[in-house]
Amino acid sequence: MELVPKSQIYARIKKFQKWLTSKDLDGAFVLQNVDLYYLSGTLQRAILFVPCEGQPLLMVIKSFQRARNESAIQAIFEIQGRGGILPILAGHGHGMLKRVGFELDVLPTAQYLWFQKKFPRIDFVDISPGIRKLRTIKTPYEVNQIQRATAILDKGYQEIQQLIREGMTELEIDGLLYCLARKEGHMGIMRMRGWNQEMTHAHVLSGESGAVVSSGETTAGGPGNTPAMPQGAGFGRVKKNEPIYIDYGVGVNGYFSDQTRTLVMGDLEDDLARAYECSKKILETLEAEVQPGIPCARLYERAHSIARKNGFEENFMGYGQGKVKFVGHGIGLEIDELPVMAPGFKAPIQEGMVFALEPKFVFPGKGIVGIEDDYRVTSKGIERLTLTDQALIRIS
Amino acid sequence: MELVPKSQIYARIKKFQKWLTSKDLDGAFVLQNVDLYYLSGTLQRAILFVPCEGQPLLMVIKSFQRARNESAIQAIFEIQGRGGILPILAGHGHGMLKRVGFELDVLPTAQYLWFQKKFPRIDFVDISPGIRKLRTIKTPYEVNQIQRATAILDKGYQEIQQLIREGMTELEIDGLLYCLARKEGHMGIMRMRGWNQEMTHAHVLSGESGAVVSSGETTAGGPGNTPAMPQGAGFGRVKKNEPIYIDYGVGVNGYFSDQTRTLVMGDLEDDLARAYECSKKILETLEAEVQPGIPCARLYERAHSIARKNGFEENFMGYGQGKVKFVGHGIGLEIDELPVMAPGFKAPIQEGMVFALEPKFVFPGKGIVGIEDDYRVTSKGIERLTLTDQALIRIS
Repeated sequence: MELVPKSQIYARIKKFQKWLTSKDLDGAFVLQNVDLYYLSGTLQRAILFVPCEGQPLLMVIKSFQRARNESAIQAIFEIQGRGGILPILAGHGHGMLKRVGFELDVLPTAQYLWFQKKFPRIDFVDISPGIRKLRTIKTPYEVNQIQRATAILDKGYQEIQQLIREGMTELEIDGLLYCLARKEGHMGIMRMRGWNQEMTHAHVLSGESGAVVSSGETTAGGPGNTPAMPQGAGFGRVKKNEPIYIDYGVGVNGYFSDQTRTLVMGDLEDDLARAYECSKKILETLEAEVQPGIPCARLYERAHSIARKNGFEENFMGYGQGKVKFVGHGIGLEIDELPVMAPGFKAPIQEGMVFALEPKFVFPGKGIVGIEDDYRVTSKGIERLTLTDQALIRIS
Repeated sequence: MELVPKSQIYARIKKFQKWLTSKDLDGAFVLQNVDLYYLSGTLQRAILFVPCEGQPLLMVIKSFQRARNESAIQAIFEIQGRGGILPILAGHGHGMLKRVGFELDVLPTAQYLWFQKKFPRIDFVDISPGIRKLRTIKTPYEVNQIQRATAILDKGYQEIQQLIREGMTELEIDGLLYCLARKEGHMGIMRMRGWNQEMTHAHVLSGESGAVVSSGETTAGGPGNTPAMPQGAGFGRVKKNEPIYIDYGVGVNGYFSDQTRTLVMGDLEDDLARAYECSKKILETLEAEVQPGIPCARLYERAHSIARKNGFEENFMGYGQGKVKFVGHGIGLEIDELPVMAPGFKAPIQEGMVFALEPKFVFPGKGIVGIEDDYRVTSKGIERLTLTDQALIRIS
C-alpha cells in the first residue's frame, strides 16, 4: 500500500493553516472523505481538527489502527463517536473556539446542526473555497499519481480497440473498460464533489446516444440504461460509420485522469469528421498558446472562436438546450476540481495546475465527437500528460 | 428505457402525503437523487415539492425534456436555477409555508442555509425518517426489480467460477464481475445514503484480506489497493485452500441486490469450513423461523446464539475491534435501507420488507467466510430471492 508522503501532508497543513489565519479563523473541522485524505493521508472514518497554528488533531472513529498506519498526522486519537471530539479539543486548548471553518458545501445539515448545538458560540465559516483553491496547485508527487492514472487509460484505449466488434452494446464496452482499468490498479470509483453528482467510470456512447442531453454539466451524458442512472452506457449497439465516444476515467491513489477518445468502425460522416479535426486543432492551438498568467476564461474564448471559424459554433460543447459553457476543468482528487475554463473565470492559469481540456461537438441524432486530454501547467506553458495519440481511432 | 409505472408514483405520493399530514407538515422539498426518483420517477436535476395535499410540483433544472418523458408527475416546470422555485410555489398557493420537510440527513448545509434565507419564517423538519420508513415496504413491482438484479448476480457467480485461476489478483476478479454484470444490464453504480459512504460494486477478498478491519459498518471491507479507497479488492492473489470472499452488488432500475458467496480452490481449513456451515445453518434457521411481527433485533439474537453454540461467537460478524452488531439490512434503492437486524431494533418485520441477511465469520490472518442472501417478507414468513445454492463454491 502506498502512503501519502509525510512531507506532502506537512506542506498541505502548513498552507492550509496560512489560509485559515488569513481568514481570521481559529481552526477548521475537516470531515469530507477527500478533504480528509488530502490533509491527513487517511480516508478512515475520522474528524480532523486543524487549528490555525500548532498541531492538527486526527480523531478516528474507525479504523483507528489503519488511520495510524496511514496518516502522517502525529496526534491521533480513537473516539467512539463524534461526541468524543469535545474532551480532546478541550484538552488541547481548543475549548473556546470562536470562528471555525467547515465544509459547508458538502456537510449534511444534520451534522451542521449537531456542531451548532455542541458549539453554540462559534461562527461557522465555509472553508470549501479555500481548500479547493489550495488543491488546484499540484506537487510533482500529485502530478505523478495523475500520470499513472493516465498511463492506465492509455493502455485501456489501446486494448479496447482490439475488442470492439460491430453490434456490441455500449454496456459491454463499458464493462470491458472497467475490467482493463481495474486489473491495472484503478481504485474502483470516481469522485465528484458536488452533491447528487454521480458518475460511472466511463461514458461509452455510440451514434445518437452521444447527442442525448443529460442532467449533468457535461457536453454529453448519454441515456444510460435506466432513468435511475440516466447517464453513460446503455443498450445502444456499435454500428459502422458512427462515432463511438469514450469518456474514460481512472484513479490511482485518489488522483484521477479523465480522457476522451472518438473511435469509428469505417468512416465518420463528413461533418463529424471535420468537427473531430476541429477538436484536434483547438487542442493544438491551446497547447501552443496557453501560458501561466492568462485568465482561465481565455481558453474557453479561444476554443469557442476556433469552433466558430470552422463553422461548428452551434455544435460546440453541446447543441441547443444541451449546450454547456466550458471547455476544461481541474482534475485531482475529484473530477470536478478547480479551475474551470469557462466565461467569467478570470483567475489566471498557474504553474502546477492540472486540468482536462475537452473540445467536443454534438450533432443531434448523430452523436458526439471530440477529444479530452489532461495537461499540467509548467513555468512556460502546458504539457500534455496523455500519451495516446490524438488522431481519430479507426477500428478495423 | 423502462419507466417507473404511474400507479407506483401515485401510490407513493399518497402515502407520503399521509405521513406529512400526520406530522403536521405543510409539505416537503425533495432534492436527494434517490428520494426524487422514488417519488417522481426521474433522477434529472430537479426539486420536487410535495404539499400535504394536492398535486406535487416537479421543478426541473436539467434536463426538462427527459424529466417530462420519465416522470408520472403532471405538474412539471422548467427552471433556470433553484431560485426559480419561488414564483412557482407562490403561483400554486404555497407562498406562505410554515412547517416544511427537508432531507436534513443528506442535504448539504449550504443548500439548507439558502432555503433558510429564502423562507425565513418556516420551520425545518427532517423528513428522512418518514421517507426511509415508507420505502421499507416494497410493492411487487419493486420486488421484481430486485429479483432481476438478483438474477444477474446469480449468473455472475456462475460465470466467475469458470474464470478464477490460482494467482489471479482480487482486482482482476473484481473487474470481471463488473464486466459480467454490466453486460447483463447492471446500472453501473451502487448507492448508500450515509454521507461519505462510498462503495465499489463488489468486495473480492482472498485469504487474509478478508480479515482486514475497514472504516464502514461492515463485517469485512478489505484493504483496497490504496488508502484513498480503503476497501474492496486489492493486490492480494488467489491461493489454494484459502477462502475467496465475494460480496457482490447489482442494480436494476435503481434497485439493488446484494449477495455474498464464499469460494475455495481446494479445501478450507477445518475451522473456516465449520464456520461456513454455521452461516448456512443460521440462514436455514432464520428461513424456517422468521415471521412477520417478530422484532428485527430477534434475528440478530437468534443468529448470534447459533454462532455461540457452535463455538464461533468471537468470529461472528467480525473479530475484535472489527466486530459489527448486525446480521442484516434492508435493501432497495439504497444498499443501507431500513430495517437493520441489530440489537435495539424493536420494530417488527413486516410483510413487503426486503432485506439481506449475512451471517459471516472472520478469522484474523486467515480471512472471512459466509453467505449473504436477499429475502422478502410474505404474509407467512421470509422467502429467499437468491437462486444460487448456498453451498460453498468449489473451484476446480
